[in-house]
Amino acid sequence: MLDCAIIGGGPAGLTAGLYATRGGLENVALFEMGMPGGQITQSSEIENYPGFFEHDKTGMDFMDTWQKQCFHFGLKHEMKKVESVEKTGEHFTVTVEGGETYEAMTVITCTGSVPKRAGFKGEDTYFGKGVSTCATCDGFFYKNKPVTVLGGGDTALEEAFFLSNICSDVYVVHRRGEFRAAPPTLDRVMRKENIHLITDSVIEEAVGDAMGLSGVDIKNTKTNEITHMDNTGLFVFVGHNVNNGVLKDDKGGFICDVTDWGQVVVDLSMKTNVPGLFMAGDIRIEAPKQVVSAAGDGSIAALQVISYLQELA
Amino acid sequence: MLDCAIIGGGPAGLTAGLYATRGGLENVALFEMGMPGGQITQSSEIENYPGFFEHDKTGMDFMDTWQKQCFHFGLKHEMKKVESVEKTGEHFTVTVEGGETYEAMTVITCTGSVPKRAGFKGEDTYFGKGVSTCATCDGFFYKNKPVTVLGGGDTALEEAFFLSNICSDVYVVHRRGEFRAAPPTLDRVMRKENIHLITDSVIEEAVGDAMGLSGVDIKNTKTNEITHMDNTGLFVFVGHNVNNGVLKDDKGGFICDVTDWGQVVVDLSMKTNVPGLFMAGDIRIEAPKQVVSAAGDGSIAALQVISYLQELA
Repeated sequence: MLDCAIIGGGPAGLTAGLYATRGGLENVALFEMGMPGGQITQSSEIENYPGFFEHDKTGMDFMDTWQKQCFHFGLKHEMKKVESVEKTGEHFTVTVEGGETYEAMTVITCTGSVPKRAGFKGEDTYFGKGVSTCATCDGFFYKNKPVTVLGGGDTALEEAFFLSNICSDVYVVHRRGEFRAAPPTLDRVMRKENIHLITDSVIEEAVGDAMGLSGVDIKNTKTNEITHMDNTGLFVFVGHNVNNGVLKDDKGGFICDVTDWGQVVVDLSMKTNVPGLFMAGDIRIEAPKQVVSAAGDGSIAALQVISYLQELA
Repeated sequence: MLDCAIIGGGPAGLTAGLYATRGGLENVALFEMGMPGGQITQSSEIENYPGFFEHDKTGMDFMDTWQKQCFHFGLKHEMKKVESVEKTGEHFTVTVEGGETYEAMTVITCTGSVPKRAGFKGEDTYFGKGVSTCATCDGFFYKNKPVTVLGGGDTALEEAFFLSNICSDVYVVHRRGEFRAAPPTLDRVMRKENIHLITDSVIEEAVGDAMGLSGVDIKNTKTNEITHMDNTGLFVFVGHNVNNGVLKDDKGGFICDVTDWGQVVVDLSMKTNVPGLFMAGDIRIEAPKQVVSAAGDGSIAALQVISYLQELA
């Protein structure tokens, strides 16, 4: 019987593992198929995680210390893909690919979310090298430079507004003629002089070289005209998929409260409505999608697991 | 007019400053009388902040990078002691010692809390060198070693239980004959074989040398007998003072919702009930009092400030 099963090996899961084991739990496993580290390992530069400020280091370098540290206190790594989590009586059953099961007193789910890709040519090639899905993370790298934003929803326009306070000009490319964002958001964006809306258009291709992205080809879908823009930053906001699959039950519902957007409902203690089941990181409601906040969540969830187990003792 | 006034320069305040300025706000000031860094600068070793795992570095070394990084993006340091924060119409007035005032669109209060000192001889001398006020932070340094705990309330006994899963023996020293902790907590503690309750007793002196704490003298207040215990860890849990003074109004109340314990009520977004007023770190309800969670709070509060200002735009 595991004291705690941690599902997912990004910043939230690793920190939860560090706090659970360093807090005295002896039987804690982190389930992650590959190398732990999470989305941040794809970043070429990080400067907003407090305490890490080395411009020549990548996301992979950044996670190096985390892995050593978080496994130092006895956390076990199960290189397995979790299929489902189920509460059976007082404890949980974690089923992995192939059908093997683990029993656990508590579960912390840290499977995160994945930004959707738009599917244009060059998107994968330049991801993390000019193509980004996070304005908070990467906007500053384009201070006083022009950037392109792809998307037409609330998030895309809010992020465009965020970028407009940092970048010289923000070109918002949207495939439709009208924006589906909330009217006040659209109003604010339209009043901002350095935001330029390019409707009925798609990204035809992200172009660049070994140094990264150098520009974007924008195609007008009505005229088929292609405009090239020299632009070293391209932000794609076409939605997120929350990785909540492990929390689905047999009937297509969820084992805990989940919003219409798929995010798990938690309180300040990272508790769900199911006793013993905790969340951390981008899977939860109102997640700011930052390494430091995901790590903070992980510490909170692990300390709550320890309290929960104390109360059962 | 400041876009944001950040009050307090610990991990929460520094991270809020990093995120606010890197997020494009140009007029952000962090108010802190001395060098920023917070309580953690008093620690001799840190191993639970993910990404920092160097056993020869102190809390002061740890905060070195933070200061460079968090002030790198234009955050201003106001070396002033804030006396009060007041909401006047749409914005805030921050008054500092001497009466000078600053106007701010938003405020993030990160003034933290301070563990109370018990007042015994040697307590200050060995603080951070064997005397601790945080089991989560420092318990692991005494793995399989005996430790002493001072205190008789719920927190003291919960922390003693936490330590009993890590340390060989936990000696709980309490000045009264009875414990005022909740009965279930006391029950659990009494069932734990390696927790030993020493009632009607106080810490007479913490003793040690240049290497740090080496033992404690415990005095029985009924017999005046003194027992010396060789013990390199002493945890003091005699309460916390929440530093909420800046939020007091003229009438002795608070400008926002505060619990009976003095912690400020927030939601997952670090919002208080006052629009534009945010909290981060140990001043808020349910704060786990960890560097990583305080930093996470700081990032959340700053991103919320940016959204709040966008909505006003």
